Amino acid sequence: MGGALPTSAVIRDVGPRDGLQPETPVSVADRVRLIEALITAGVTRIEAAAFVSPKAVPAMAGAAEVMAALPRSPDVTLTALVPNLKGAKLALAADVDELTVTISISETYNQRNVGMSSAESEAVIAAICASSPEAPVDAVVSCAFGSPYEGDVDPAAVAALEGRLRDVGCAAVTLADTTGMATPRRIDEVVDAVGPSIGLHLHDTRGTALVNAYAALQRGVTRFDTSVGGLGGSPFAHGATGNLATEELVAMLDDLGVVTGISVEGLVDAAALASALVGRPVPSRVAGAGPRSRLAGGAP
Amino acid sequence: MGGALPTSAVIRDVGPRDGLQPETPVSVADRVRLIEALITAGVTRIEAAAFVSPKAVPAMAGAAEVMAALPRSPDVTLTALVPNLKGAKLALAADVDELTVTISISETYNQRNVGMSSAESEAVIAAICASSPEAPVDAVVSCAFGSPYEGDVDPAAVAALEGRLRDVGCAAVTLADTTGMATPRRIDEVVDAVGPSIGLHLHDTRGTALVNAYAALQRGVTRFDTSVGGLGGSPFAHGATGNLATEELVAMLDDLGVVTGISVEGLVDAAALASALVGRPVPSRVAGAGPRSRLAGGAP
Repeated sequence: MGGALPTSAVIRDVGPRDGLQPETPVSVADRVRLIEALITAGVTRIEAAAFVSPKAVPAMAGAAEVMAALPRSPDVTLTALVPNLKGAKLALAADVDELTVTISISETYNQRNVGMSSAESEAVIAAICASSPEAPVDAVVSCAFGSPYEGDVDPAAVAALEGRLRDVGCAAVTLADTTGMATPRRIDEVVDAVGPSIGLHLHDTRGTALVNAYAALQRGVTRFDTSVGGLGGSPFAHGATGNLATEELVAMLDDLGVVTGISVEGLVDAAALASALVGRPVPSRVAGAGPRSRLAGGAP
Repeated sequence: MGGALPTSAVIRDVGPRDGLQPETPVSVADRVRLIEALITAGVTRIEAAAFVSPKAVPAMAGAAEVMAALPRSPDVTLTALVPNLKGAKLALAADVDELTVTISISETYNQRNVGMSSAESEAVIAAICASSPEAPVDAVVSCAFGSPYEGDVDPAAVAALEGRLRDVGCAAVTLADTTGMATPRRIDEVVDAVGPSIGLHLHDTRGTALVNAYAALQRGVTRFDTSVGGLGGSPFAHGATGNLATEELVAMLDDLGVVTGISVEGLVDAAALASALVGRPVPSRVAGAGPRSRLAGGAP
């Protein structure tokens, strides 16, 4: 258990999508401001939009407008979530750099979330990969460390699904701890089964997001989805505290000497903007306290 | 970095003292109820009171009454914080099982906290040890992983202070991350310098309390101060999110197979009581979401 840490890690901020999706809709202009604040902080991979039905997910309306308003640079990869072929076509028309698609290893969760079986979701993902040669597809596997319906998940089943998703053309696979059921032990078991060449998308439902990221780093994982301010989850359900906060992960990585190229102070500024946009304090503690290098004012 | 985890760990819940100290005073009867709830959950070490000036710390008034009202058992160690010889005498008269004393390795923090130098605090601790042969003394060293005034702390200085505290008669030394400046790297460095036979008292100011506990476990540390519900710190300062929550640590240890003898469900009940006593939700996420074994109700 444990080993030398990697020298660098890649952070994809999913706040503008996964973070804002459950919120009261924020305007296109403000979502663009938030993404620009992340780019200013040095974030180079951002899930910027979701090409979904604006009726089903009002907070994600205007995805094409968000993409059109954003400054483009070869240094910044802009990702969009797409639920189906139609969404993928719209995303590609908006010049999205990378597509994320979702599937749950939990049959019940998949049925409840998208109204189809996991096998049907696999077929949808295969069709998206086949029709989108110009953008890499990252399949995000939800409930990979436990299902709120079926409980424990077999790491071998996660590895098998990861293999099938690669086979149908996914350029990357990201394992999500959708309801915060991972622990360092589950991270170890799943990474041992799947290998370290996956991304991790961690939620802090039980306060374990950062320790799970640390366990994964010790196993050689270097790719993480995080959300500025720790946005995400339901703002109305106590205990559903959203995604791993970008600034909490980057602050820890900074002190561990794992390079991300991202400024914690810049993230704290972006988190303050996120807080203003959603109208309440964000869950991130680093957003409130600042990095450890920020000493008490007025100290002698 | 990292190694096999220990098979068991000892948790001391400091919620009734460190957790409630900054709060609007809670009655003696309600503090006793909270301690009884912790005992019911299986906690066997509890910081139950502080024998301090009730004028200076109104929330801790009635320490002797708390001790007198508690059921006593050889299986449960009841600890009290004492700031000086007078407090130690009152605590021993109240039949306290263990005394905690504090000292900061940060000179500025010590001066601001207790109005004397760290060397003067060492002398006070030596006097308490000399006058209290009937109860072991645990010296809690604040700012051991960083000072909000002086920044980084030299692990060798922590080791030297730990040695001096043992030399004057302290039965145990606990290192506190008072303002959440520890990271797994700082934990590794300090435990490598001091050795694993220390307790850790972690605060979650920057969201790192649980990952720091995990790093310490990997280094062989088995003794942790935690607070039911994650109480502690200032309830009014955003970002000062209190102590490591007992139920968050125990939930993780349960899944890691590290035995504590404590029931997470019992802790969730105690955290609900703590929440009612302070009149707001507690910061602990496990208190809100329950352990990972608690699956969604009504699942098919």
